[in-house]
Amino acid sequence: MKFGRFDNDRLGLIEGDQVFDITPALDALPPLRWPVPLGDPLIANLPALMDAARLVRRSAYPYKLSQVHLHSPITAPSKVMAAPANYRLHVEQDTKDAGVDQGVHRKALEGVERPAEKYGLFLKATSSIAGPSEGVRIVLPDRRTDHEVELGVVIGKAGHAISRADAMSHVAGYCLGLDMTVRGAEDRSFRKSPDTYTVLGPCFVTADEIADPHALTMSLWVNGERRQHSSTGAMTIDIPDLIELASRVYTLHPGDVILTGTPEGVGPVVAGDEIRAACDGIGEMTLRVSNHP
Amino acid sequence: MKFGRFDNDRLGLIEGDQVFDITPALDALPPLRWPVPLGDPLIANLPALMDAARLVRRSAYPYKLSQVHLHSPITAPSKVMAAPANYRLHVEQDTKDAGVDQGVHRKALEGVERPAEKYGLFLKATSSIAGPSEGVRIVLPDRRTDHEVELGVVIGKAGHAISRADAMSHVAGYCLGLDMTVRGAEDRSFRKSPDTYTVLGPCFVTADEIADPHALTMSLWVNGERRQHSSTGAMTIDIPDLIELASRVYTLHPGDVILTGTPEGVGPVVAGDEIRAACDGIGEMTLRVSNHP
Repeated sequence: MKFGRFDNDRLGLIEGDQVFDITPALDALPPLRWPVPLGDPLIANLPALMDAARLVRRSAYPYKLSQVHLHSPITAPSKVMAAPANYRLHVEQDTKDAGVDQGVHRKALEGVERPAEKYGLFLKATSSIAGPSEGVRIVLPDRRTDHEVELGVVIGKAGHAISRADAMSHVAGYCLGLDMTVRGAEDRSFRKSPDTYTVLGPCFVTADEIADPHALTMSLWVNGERRQHSSTGAMTIDIPDLIELASRVYTLHPGDVILTGTPEGVGPVVAGDEIRAACDGIGEMTLRVSNHP
Repeated sequence: MKFGRFDNDRLGLIEGDQVFDITPALDALPPLRWPVPLGDPLIANLPALMDAARLVRRSAYPYKLSQVHLHSPITAPSKVMAAPANYRLHVEQDTKDAGVDQGVHRKALEGVERPAEKYGLFLKATSSIAGPSEGVRIVLPDRRTDHEVELGVVIGKAGHAISRADAMSHVAGYCLGLDMTVRGAEDRSFRKSPDTYTVLGPCFVTADEIADPHALTMSLWVNGERRQHSSTGAMTIDIPDLIELASRVYTLHPGDVILTGTPEGVGPVVAGDEIRAACDGIGEMTLRVSNHP
């Protein structure tokens, strides 16, 4: 199933170029009371939600996907993590650009075969999450903001110290992610956390629909020009190893997102640009870049 | 007012060595529905909660503070931020310890008068938040975990690009924070984010009770030996400047916590240790260190 959030607080099932309004299925979620438990409520209750969705779908109204506003399907994860330097060609090629390298990355990654094992994952603020309809709003327009397209893995089941063998049973599904990044000297978790700098969309697709998450073609265009294009099979540390590595340090909660790294071809965007991103099995999304008001 | 969360889901008002059970005041919080808005619901509705607390307090049952389990008063912030190297003596003295310095910090901070202006704030995972009763659970026990006591500033009112002049009007109150830290080469936002590595407590004290947050004595003891002791007045970048600096990059939401940096004296703890931390105007908390089960 492909779940999409649309028009603020509507829940939809995306099928082809239609989105079926299954908002009443949200009644399957238990009421939330303070203190709110960790984890995205939609994903934490996914089996019940999927059952309800199947029932509600029968009489659901179909909108044209092109006529709704798509937001991030994930709204309240306990954390958004990302794997640094997880595509070899990104490291080899993109760090030749001094604006990307900042005089530090190439040196720090020299001879490091598996960067996330040495440097761990980094965090992006949950307040930076946006969907395609919000677009990317550039902060600090005198600085450079780059696009980084990534496969997002959504955790479904809480776990600590998850083994590689068990890891995929903790995956609820996938989404496309844009790890937007201000270049500069600041801590990654700062530069990568402005509002709208974590675009998740166009939908959350359940794991059963993706036969092999390491064999998806993923691309990104700016103003129609293709800038990034790779198979997810090129990622250096694969999804089970990322889950094992992350959960050795902290508990992964339902709805937590692991952005699995960006392939080669990152580059700047400015206000007025149009970004299109697509990934096999997930879909595509188009969004506008503007300056933060 | 001093709000404390106790015995899992009870809300209390702390007065001296008593905690008054004002749980019914939680009815002042509006019901939560998916998609849950950004921000800690307790802090986002603080004025209404304070009104309700005053009413409920009249007939509230007083427990002895020593007989309840205190948890973090902040449960669902959109982010926990922390200021790097924000006390001069911490940088000068503690980086002489190679285990703290890791061959990088001293060099990176040389000649940098105001580190957070150059390096920004870093994030800690919200899933790392714990209260005193959970204690600190060491992960990776073959690695070194250090204590860092800090003043936590809790944002009350959402804002982006907040000016220094307006900054203090965005502060809801304060808590004590322990920025527990695994030493090593990994990204700060990874090493500082294991479960229980962000201890917040013993209470959330509203801003009106703290005349000057830059004139508080803050101390930390391990097994009775005082390890850290400083005035918050020694912080390099003060609270209004931290708020201005942070909000230039991302929106600060109600309940967001800014840990304002640690003074000199950081050092390792191991399972079996007892940490006590205290701060003028906020109170004190004692917690046990154990290994993660």
